[in-house]
This record gives sequence, structure tokens and C-alpha cells, in this order.
Amino acid sequence: MPASPLLAVLSGERRDPPPVWLMRQAGRYLPEYRALRAEKGGFLDLCYDPAAAAEVTLQPLRRFGFDGAILFSDILVVPHAMGQRLWFEAGEGPRLAPPLLDGLLDGLPADPALLRPVYETVRRVRAALPPTVAMLGFAGSPWTVATYMVAGQGSKDQAPARRLAYRDPQAFGRLVDAIVAVTADYLVGQVDAGVQAVQLFDSWAGSLAPDQFRAWVVEPNARLAALVRARRPGVPVIGFPKGAGAKLPDYVAAMAPDAVGLDETVDPAWADAALPPGLPVQGNLDPLALHAGGPALARAVAAIRAAFARRPHVFNLGHGILPDTPVSHVDALLAMVRA
Amino acid sequence: MPASPLLAVLSGERRDPPPVWLMRQAGRYLPEYRALRAEKGGFLDLCYDPAAAAEVTLQPLRRFGFDGAILFSDILVVPHAMGQRLWFEAGEGPRLAPPLLDGLLDGLPADPALLRPVYETVRRVRAALPPTVAMLGFAGSPWTVATYMVAGQGSKDQAPARRLAYRDPQAFGRLVDAIVAVTADYLVGQVDAGVQAVQLFDSWAGSLAPDQFRAWVVEPNARLAALVRARRPGVPVIGFPKGAGAKLPDYVAAMAPDAVGLDETVDPAWADAALPPGLPVQGNLDPLALHAGGPALARAVAAIRAAFARRPHVFNLGHGILPDTPVSHVDALLAMVRA
Repeated sequence: MPASPLLAVLSGERRDPPPVWLMRQAGRYLPEYRALRAEKGGFLDLCYDPAAAAEVTLQPLRRFGFDGAILFSDILVVPHAMGQRLWFEAGEGPRLAPPLLDGLLDGLPADPALLRPVYETVRRVRAALPPTVAMLGFAGSPWTVATYMVAGQGSKDQAPARRLAYRDPQAFGRLVDAIVAVTADYLVGQVDAGVQAVQLFDSWAGSLAPDQFRAWVVEPNARLAALVRARRPGVPVIGFPKGAGAKLPDYVAAMAPDAVGLDETVDPAWADAALPPGLPVQGNLDPLALHAGGPALARAVAAIRAAFARRPHVFNLGHGILPDTPVSHVDALLAMVRA
Repeated sequence: MPASPLLAVLSGERRDPPPVWLMRQAGRYLPEYRALRAEKGGFLDLCYDPAAAAEVTLQPLRRFGFDGAILFSDILVVPHAMGQRLWFEAGEGPRLAPPLLDGLLDGLPADPALLRPVYETVRRVRAALPPTVAMLGFAGSPWTVATYMVAGQGSKDQAPARRLAYRDPQAFGRLVDAIVAVTADYLVGQVDAGVQAVQLFDSWAGSLAPDQFRAWVVEPNARLAALVRARRPGVPVIGFPKGAGAKLPDYVAAMAPDAVGLDETVDPAWADAALPPGLPVQGNLDPLALHAGGPALARAVAAIRAAFARRPHVFNLGHGILPDTPVSHVDALLAMVRA
């Protein structure tokens, strides 16, 4: 039996109260994070600085005693390692250059060694954690990573990648295949450095028509999960296809994740009825309900707890915590969940 | 039996091939629309100019022979009539002032007479249409209209309205009630001027957590539809809760729309299985598949036709046509649908 309640749930045991962690729990809502950012500089510098990234990863653990620590990094380190230049424009978000509007990677200076500082961060965090706290790794799902690689930045409705996928599915497929291969290596590297479960973030799964969803979300995620399982058996894979809506059961059936993350728009009662019995779920509090606090928060927490009363459940948000969330609301949430 | 195939389907008859119209069929992808805009000026001026708006409404009918004409207007004429100032910033979208961050309408100079030119547009269009072509009216759904009224503009994830709804549900509820009342009058006015069915656009239904979806999408839409039905019985109401995902059956059960619009992310086979037998559906081609044309378009059209082969179906997009869609692709689509 795993010493960590979070790992126990991911392996199919039910725990009551549920283990809890929050997406983006290491981040801007914490004054200690803002202080470290002010001292150390840019977001990406932090991601590639193992001492700083380990410190940031551990900050919310010290304050709240979450059941999991999630690596502080970014999904776009994978395109960076694949040879695109990567930087963050203040107030605007990520930039990747050159944009791959035709999907072709030819001539880009791929350099997997860029990912080594991330593995060092994992080693430092794992060494600092007690065995009761699980260390989670992550990567972007191939579709979501591809949307940034094609557009060179965030894009409205992910139109550039969706257009390329319709116009030239062969070229787009080769790009996705390359992302799958690099991401599998990256996740294996994280596991070898000490992560005990991995989450695949598909932040933009919600923008695709059903045939495109099958081709670019379900199939590559299934392939990626299978590669990681074949090379490092027994490490739970959490799939998080944000915005999948009614297509969630198809995703689960094809990919067979060890647990599935639910975004805040999913009705937990529907999910409990629609998903295979016993499948661990993770989620799915509305980050705005946490931001609001008070009765709205209490009602939302109670509804989620009630819906998943007979299923392995990891309590989490349905999306990242908002930067202006009061820290006291997180304390209140933990008291409610653990009551 | 209605002379119009579109009205026949909305009343529950199946027609093969299905009637077809496209959301935003009167718009920027048409050279004749761009020419008229260049001559007449701003988008809002066009909406309030009955001769010009009628001409724009009719342009796609002349070119393509669609089965329905949809009023050329904007959902934000309702907040305008409720007393907010309304204008469009070039390249940025709508602005409403003052923003109603606390939800209070007090002191705004409401003026329902602002909507009269819209009714005149309807009269002109209806007079120009043959009886085989249906005239459709529309309004924004209360939630979607409220998101603009609160933020004063489009907003990322509709956060200002969602925050107000959590923080002060009483104030937000009074705002929604006011929108329901004005919108019911507006739709009755459209019917009296000649529209034969109305569509309720809930473009931002997809951003809400399930309890908020029930409170602010399902319930006000049901109330609005009931008001219109009580005052003008027999006029079909098409509900279009974009992004509702797996919550679509709950929406349909509570609101009992005469037909339901499906966005492009909905798997038509799932919808056919999940929705009540015989309920007319409308949709749901991916606008990017129409933009791409070729085999991607042919495959998507065939999948939709096949999924709805035993149900009343209005062929449409899942979202508005993209401004840079080639006109020849619309011709190709019509040939496919009508083959």
C-alpha cells in the first residue's frame, strides 16, 4: 500500500477525506512566490533554475500541507527542446519562433539537454518531501503543445493548428508524432528523477470537432500514455482533456488513463454516471468559486464531495488557481475538504 | 403543412435533403456585404438602418438560395435599449458603457423605441421573401447578454459576470430578470413584424460550472422561451447553448426548445443518442472545415448527414461562418447537402 494518500487514490483506492492538491498551486497567488520572482527575474529563468524551481514547488507544501507537489515548469519546454526559440512577453504570454505554420520541423536545432535542469528540480524536490507527499510530473498533451508550436503563441480558438490539421493532416501528423516521441522521453526522464505520477495537460482539447478530437487528442494521448507505461510500468498517468465535454467517455475508453482530470464545467454527477466504475477522478472546483469564497465555495465543495462519494477522488480545481485568489480561501477550502 | 422546408423541420417533420442556412450567412465573407459596408460605414449603423439591414439580410439568399433568412442585427441592441451606450471599436469588438460591475441598472435611460428599426427591417425582408423561405429572428440569451453588460465588452472566460454571479447572486439575478423581460418584448416585436421562428444565442454558455449553468443558462432560457410561447403561441424557439457539452440534455429537458442548435464540438452521433427522439437539431459543421474545403469538408458533411439520418435536421454550421471563407466553398457545401 502506498504511503502517500494521493498515490493510493491514483492506484484505485478510495480515501475519505480525499487527498488534495491544486493546479498552479505554486504560483502568483502566493506572496512568497511573488517575492522570489521579484528577486530572480523571469518565469522561464525560474523554470530552468533547479534551486529556484524546487523552492517554488515546495512553497505551497509548507504553507498548506497539500498531498501532492507538482513540478514547477511549463509545457513549452518541450518545443524549446525541439528547437524553437522560447520566451515570454510580459503581460502577453509565450512566444515560440519560428512559428511552424506548415508543421515542418526541418532544420530546427533540437537539444534534449535543455530539459536536464527540470530533472534536477525533480531530484531536489523529491529529496525534500516526506513519503506521504506524492511528487507529480507533467507535460502538455501533443495537441495542446502543437497549437503553440504552429501559431508561435497562444491563438484564438487555436485556429492556426486547426487549419493546418484540416489542410495538411500528413504534415500535422508528423509534427504530432515528433511531439509524442520527445514528450515520452521527457516523462521517462521525470520518472527516473523521482516523479511518482504524471499528468498530461490538454488545455485546448475543447476546441476540436469530434473527428479532429479523435485524431489529435484521443489517439496521440493514448500513444503517449502507452509509451510511458511500456518504459516505466506502474507510474500512474492522469489525463486532463480540458473542455472535452460529452466526449470525455470516449477519451477515457481509448486512452485508459489511471485517473482523469475534470474541468470545472463538468457536472460531477454526470461524470460519476458516465465514467467506468472505480476509475479515479480528479477535480473539479471552479477556480472562481475558490476566488469568491463564502457560501458559493461551500456549496460547490459539498456538491463535488457528494457526487464522488463512492469513487476514488483527488480533490482539485477544474483549472489553475487564479492569481488574485486570497490565500485565506485556500485555507478555508482545505478545512472544508478535510472536515 | 408549412410551405417552408425549414419551418416544416422546426415543427418536427423530417426533410431529405435537410433545409440549410448558415450562422452569419449575411456577413464579411461576401464581397457584396463588404461593398455595402464600405459605402454605408459602421456595423451598428447598418443594424439600425432598415433598408441597408434588409439588403444585407437578403444578399446571401440571392446568391445561395438558403432555406432561411436570418435578421441582420446584433445581440447587443438589447442592452442598448436597456440604457447602456453601445459602440464598436474597430478591430476590437463591442463596448457597452457604463459597465455594470455591480449589476445595477438604476438610472440608465432605457429606450425600447431604439428597437423599432429592427422590426422595420423584419417587415422589409419578409415582404421580399417567397413563402418557401423562412424568416428567422434572434436574440442573445440572458446569460450571454449579461456577460457583456457586466464587463462592458467581451471578456476572457466571462470572468466579470461569473464573479458577480458568485459574489452577489441577488443583484445578478435582478439583472438577468430585466434582460429576460426586455428580450421577451423584443422577440414578440420581431414575431409581430414577420419572423416565423426565433433563435436564442447563448454564445458563452460553455464557461459555467454546472450549478451556475443551471441558474443562469437553463433557468432564464426556459423562462424566456415560456414567455414568448405564452404571448405568441406556435412560433418555434431554437435554443443554441454553445459549449454546453454533456449538459445539453439537461438544457433540453428544462427548456423544451422546439429545436436545439449544436456547436461544432458536439459529436452528432452522441447528440442523436442523448437527445429525445424526434427533437429537431440544427448544425453542426465546423466553420474551419468549410474554410478548408475539399476532402475534410466532404467527410464532415457526410458524418453529420449520417448521424441525423432519422431525425428532423436543419443543416448549419456549429458557429458563425469565418470572414475569410471562400464563397466557392459555400457553393460546394450546398451541392453536397442537396445531393
